[in-house]
Amino acid sequence: MATDRPMQLGMIGLGRMGANLVRRLMRDGHRCVVYDVDADAIRQLEAEGATGATSLQDFAAKLDPPRAAWLMLPTAIVDATLTQLVPLLAPGDTIIDGGNSYYRDDITRAKQLATQGIHYVDCGTSGGVWGLERGYCLMIGGQVEAVNHLDPIFKTIAPGKGDVEPTPSRTRTDGTAPEGYLHCGPNGAGHFVKMVHNGVEYGMMAAIAEGLSVIKHADAGKQTRTVDAETTPLRDPEAYQYDIDVGEVAEVWRRGSVVGSWLVDLTADAFARSPELDDFTGRVSDSGEGRWTVLAALDEGVPASVITTALYERFESRQLGEFTDRILSAMRSEFGGHAEKKP
Amino acid sequence: MATDRPMQLGMIGLGRMGANLVRRLMRDGHRCVVYDVDADAIRQLEAEGATGATSLQDFAAKLDPPRAAWLMLPTAIVDATLTQLVPLLAPGDTIIDGGNSYYRDDITRAKQLATQGIHYVDCGTSGGVWGLERGYCLMIGGQVEAVNHLDPIFKTIAPGKGDVEPTPSRTRTDGTAPEGYLHCGPNGAGHFVKMVHNGVEYGMMAAIAEGLSVIKHADAGKQTRTVDAETTPLRDPEAYQYDIDVGEVAEVWRRGSVVGSWLVDLTADAFARSPELDDFTGRVSDSGEGRWTVLAALDEGVPASVITTALYERFESRQLGEFTDRILSAMRSEFGGHAEKKP
Amino acid sequence: MATDRPMQLGMIGLGRMGANLVRRLMRDGHRCVVYDVDADAIRQLEAEGATGATSLQDFAAKLDPPRAAWLMLPTAIVDATLTQLVPLLAPGDTIIDGGNSYYRDDITRAKQLATQGIHYVDCGTSGGVWGLERGYCLMIGGQVEAVNHLDPIFKTIAPGKGDVEPTPSRTRTDGTAPEGYLHCGPNGAGHFVKMVHNGVEYGMMAAIAEGLSVIKHADAGKQTRTVDAETTPLRDPEAYQYDIDVGEVAEVWRRGSVVGSWLVDLTADAFARSPELDDFTGRVSDSGEGRWTVLAALDEGVPASVITTALYERFESRQLGEFTDRILSAMRSEFGGHAEKKP
Amino acid sequence: MATDRPMQLGMIGLGRMGANLVRRLMRDGHRCVVYDVDADAIRQLEAEGATGATSLQDFAAKLDPPRAAWLMLPTAIVDATLTQLVPLLAPGDTIIDGGNSYYRDDITRAKQLATQGIHYVDCGTSGGVWGLERGYCLMIGGQVEAVNHLDPIFKTIAPGKGDVEPTPSRTRTDGTAPEGYLHCGPNGAGHFVKMVHNGVEYGMMAAIAEGLSVIKHADAGKQTRTVDAETTPLRDPEAYQYDIDVGEVAEVWRRGSVVGSWLVDLTADAFARSPELDDFTGRVSDSGEGRWTVLAALDEGVPASVITTALYERFESRQLGEFTDRILSAMRSEFGGHAEKKP
Repeated sequence: MATDRPMQLGMIGLGRMGANLVRRLMRDGHRCVVYDVDADAIRQLEAEGATGATSLQDFAAKLDPPRAAWLMLPTAIVDATLTQLVPLLAPGDTIIDGGNSYYRDDITRAKQLATQGIHYVDCGTSGGVWGLERGYCLMIGGQVEAVNHLDPIFKTIAPGKGDVEPTPSRTRTDGTAPEGYLHCGPNGAGHFVKMVHNGVEYGMMAAIAEGLSVIKHADAGKQTRTVDAETTPLRDPEAYQYDIDVGEVAEVWRRGSVVGSWLVDLTADAFARSPELDDFTGRVSDSGEGRWTVLAALDEGVPASVITTALYERFESRQLGEFTDRILSAMRSEFGGHAEKKP
Repeated sequence: MATDRPMQLGMIGLGRMGANLVRRLMRDGHRCVVYDVDADAIRQLEAEGATGATSLQDFAAKLDPPRAAWLMLPTAIVDATLTQLVPLLAPGDTIIDGGNSYYRDDITRAKQLATQGIHYVDCGTSGGVWGLERGYCLMIGGQVEAVNHLDPIFKTIAPGKGDVEPTPSRTRTDGTAPEGYLHCGPNGAGHFVKMVHNGVEYGMMAAIAEGLSVIKHADAGKQTRTVDAETTPLRDPEAYQYDIDVGEVAEVWRRGSVVGSWLVDLTADAFARSPELDDFTGRVSDSGEGRWTVLAALDEGVPASVITTALYERFESRQLGEFTDRILSAMRSEFGGHAEKKP
Repeated sequence: MATDRPMQLGMIGLGRMGANLVRRLMRDGHRCVVYDVDADAIRQLEAEGATGATSLQDFAAKLDPPRAAWLMLPTAIVDATLTQLVPLLAPGDTIIDGGNSYYRDDITRAKQLATQGIHYVDCGTSGGVWGLERGYCLMIGGQVEAVNHLDPIFKTIAPGKGDVEPTPSRTRTDGTAPEGYLHCGPNGAGHFVKMVHNGVEYGMMAAIAEGLSVIKHADAGKQTRTVDAETTPLRDPEAYQYDIDVGEVAEVWRRGSVVGSWLVDLTADAFARSPELDDFTGRVSDSGEGRWTVLAALDEGVPASVITTALYERFESRQLGEFTDRILSAMRSEFGGHAEKKP
Repeated sequence: MATDRPMQLGMIGLGRMGANLVRRLMRDGHRCVVYDVDADAIRQLEAEGATGATSLQDFAAKLDPPRAAWLMLPTAIVDATLTQLVPLLAPGDTIIDGGNSYYRDDITRAKQLATQGIHYVDCGTSGGVWGLERGYCLMIGGQVEAVNHLDPIFKTIAPGKGDVEPTPSRTRTDGTAPEGYLHCGPNGAGHFVKMVHNGVEYGMMAAIAEGLSVIKHADAGKQTRTVDAETTPLRDPEAYQYDIDVGEVAEVWRRGSVVGSWLVDLTADAFARSPELDDFTGRVSDSGEGRWTVLAALDEGVPASVITTALYERFESRQLGEFTDRILSAMRSEFGGHAEKKP
């Protein structure tokens, strides 16, 4: 089931995401020129059929004009890479940023590149380590012509209709959303939607994790609580006598429930690996998109209480509220003579 | 693909959920005796093959001992129904409460019924109006024997393995969770897990809705904001110039994205019906489970920030914070002479 | 400035609060009979003029009927004490619970005691270790006659008008609220209002602590952040180059600012003792009232987002969200191959 | 009690805040040159002893070099005013922005003005309509020399030690914080601290308002709730039978309680004016500082859950979550056939 319109694409950044994008493209008949600072990563993909480049110069030289160069890089090094790459390109070429850039940077970059006749496309890419097989959900921003030109690439990378049931009430027959990729609007719109996607992801993850934690602690009545003025007594210990298998709960929610979701699927898988999740200490990173989503909500004046709360929960998991908490303890000591309880 | 162990079940309460449960059971070869205060509802299911009962007496008489009677009723009338029903039953019979009872009521009822030799099983039932086709996710509480006895019933009602991919890391081969039903523990455990399920549902729904709302308002820079001391100016209107098709975003998220879920499927469907959701005013009810989940979190001492926030968001949607807000306006008027802005 | 209507009061529980209440009462000319399980505590107050009791029997015997017995005990032992005390009392006597009982217990107790002709008064008492000098703010529930009878006691314990400026717009001249004590309603109303008072306290404390923490971290741009996909880069480090003296900020807010409050006074004092609050680790207890306030909000359907958030912040300070966080890490590992970052 | 070091100050912007600052300065022996676009405002202050200016040119001419010009203007027009004013000034002059500018603008402005030898001081000013009598709490940013030069001005505007009790543990004798003004750091630091002050204010206000609302609704058990699947039943109506006078609660909290604060004072006053707060509808504005505080918290990685929640509560009071809520209703309709309940 190869693509009926094979193209050539250059990929810069051959980490897990970049390498798998190349593989998915080649499987479908596209040709790829690949570059990374890690020569091993290049060699590996050469062995699988890609054309390796030894430098950005070589990379640019091996691409047929009009070039299409996809960047799959950590946000922090995109601009430095562009500085080196752009002088090697020509009017009519297109740069695609497939990483997690802040959408405002897209707006700035697109404007600058336009002065040199170079197209810029921002493409939020969701799918994680499973994308090679499942396909990647693509949220795309840029000018119509540039985006349309790359359609065969997007179509291959995206999941396609697959075995997901069509939306019953959908009557419109145009549009690529049902195939898992969407041109969201002008530059920045792709990363804007991807940014919010990640914000939603934070909220959904937190809802699932909190719920399972409440279920895990349904045995609270079996624990002994200290009896002192610093500890809230549990009034109804007999109502918290359950030992519920949290992993099995995640598993059962996978079928027929309202909360059925890929995140619940993954949660069930994680518990199947490790019923107590002993490998994790619970320090949860956040990598920008959540904060930027909240920022957009603030600018727009839209309450995003749940997404924000999920973000702060991650902050708390990393003890970032520690100074706040010390102030609280200090106040309690001042007005009530309360000493802190030891763990 | 009929069940290999057909049973008889009595169903009290033939609303949408109850009636569809009966249909799903009959399709699979089980026999059903049905009762409702609405005679039309009984007649309808008789026409489809059920045995109608004209009263609770008749209902009890038409069930073969040991009887299995499933209640699918609004929470508020379960106890009244039990008062009438229980005297008509005999030791060894089983009552299943498939509605949304508070799990503490299950504990109380099970204890009382046990004194009469009657089994009680609480069964949280998720699946909504789609359950007839998809099957219902069942979260079950009760004594092992009683639950095991009803296994053919649960197996039929649940979705089964279906075309959901097995959890990759799952090695255990016992247990019914992969078929969509789970015996969670002793009485109350089923409704406890269902209660939390609904709390998770609140959180996931809110995350999705907030995110899509942030996307909807990505055109904020096109709006004119009043310039006065009461209004926060938008510093970067040029960063909010997008008109993004929110329905298409929901559609594209259905495939390959991390937030892929049944709730996103439904959201895409809702937008396909009505791109601006004009039929809704945004008064969002809550029906108990969310509040009870928070209550459990408080008793257990588990932070459930996201679920609670989602619940309060629903309160706000119904203007339940109005007095709070009036106090805030009053304070602002006191210290700053701020008059309220009109809408 | 002794009271013009001296009374006799029995005090059970001579911890810091109880002992200081006795001192404040004696200073104003009231007579006190005191009892505690700790004989030293009794001796100390005897030395200051109180009448010590060697047992609850002795306590009851030394009080003139109709007796007034004030309990100042940890919530968890109030009921056990009542069980012993009540048989020693007579119709017409009054029990005052001045601790932090759950208001629903007040309703139950008052009903039971009424059958024996004993009055019950619930009295929320705020003021902490400063109350001896400042007076205690009293929130009282009970029947009108019982509360009125104790008026001289309440008047002495409360702060009185003091040097607090009268509320400018207040025209009503009745009522004791301007003297710092208030009969809030029937039994339970006193502890209900005190419970909410503590909920408000949680919220105010958190607001102050969070704000000062944001100010403390205004030097964030001076820190070096790791550059990787797990860490949000700080886009404008030049905007976070401040070393602000947080203690001086608390001090300046004490005068003329909108946030001026006793809690800010105490915070300034805490920083004056210890500019970095090194004595505290930030484990913040919660002792019931916050949870009960949220519970009331849920029952009433009133959004109490800020108070609840403040409560959960305390939970987080004690790492009670740890299992939640581990689930989040597990999910991130599943979909993105994200390893947890070490501290 | 006139100042011992009288200065001359120019004031631009004679709204309530600006005019009262001038009055407070003149009372203490300072001389003021005043300008506003509203000639009446100028005439009024001329009548009280100020020197009016007919234009910015006239304003600059009437100030003795080195000039000190205080701007008390809506944030949105500060930059436009500076554009006109700066060319009329000379090296060595000082501009003070006493409004609510975003602290990042201070950094930018100070840098630009420095190239012209003009000093810039940012001064967050808290006190509202009460500042004329109480004095204003000042949070100041700028270079040491410029700030020190203006010390007599700040000292007069600030509340001074007044009758606020000194912080007991405070041993340091330097610093102006106990007099109600503080040099917080270099440019921007003043408005940074004022910004966070307002964030704290949002949180404290919300805590008080929520608590009083929970008390107001302590009569929930007297209301009749609809019995249907969309409405959470109140399980214990007998625990919510109180009619508590919320205004009297605010009044009693003014004395001796932990929540005692100026905001509670003002709340008591508001209820004294209007026991049901009938004049307010509950649309609560936010004017920038709250949002900017959250933004700083996000950048710093500090959880500011309570402050953020208070901000979103204001958004909700203005129905800004309406689209979110409609999506929630749409989802509920999709999965459960739930129709929205009418108000």
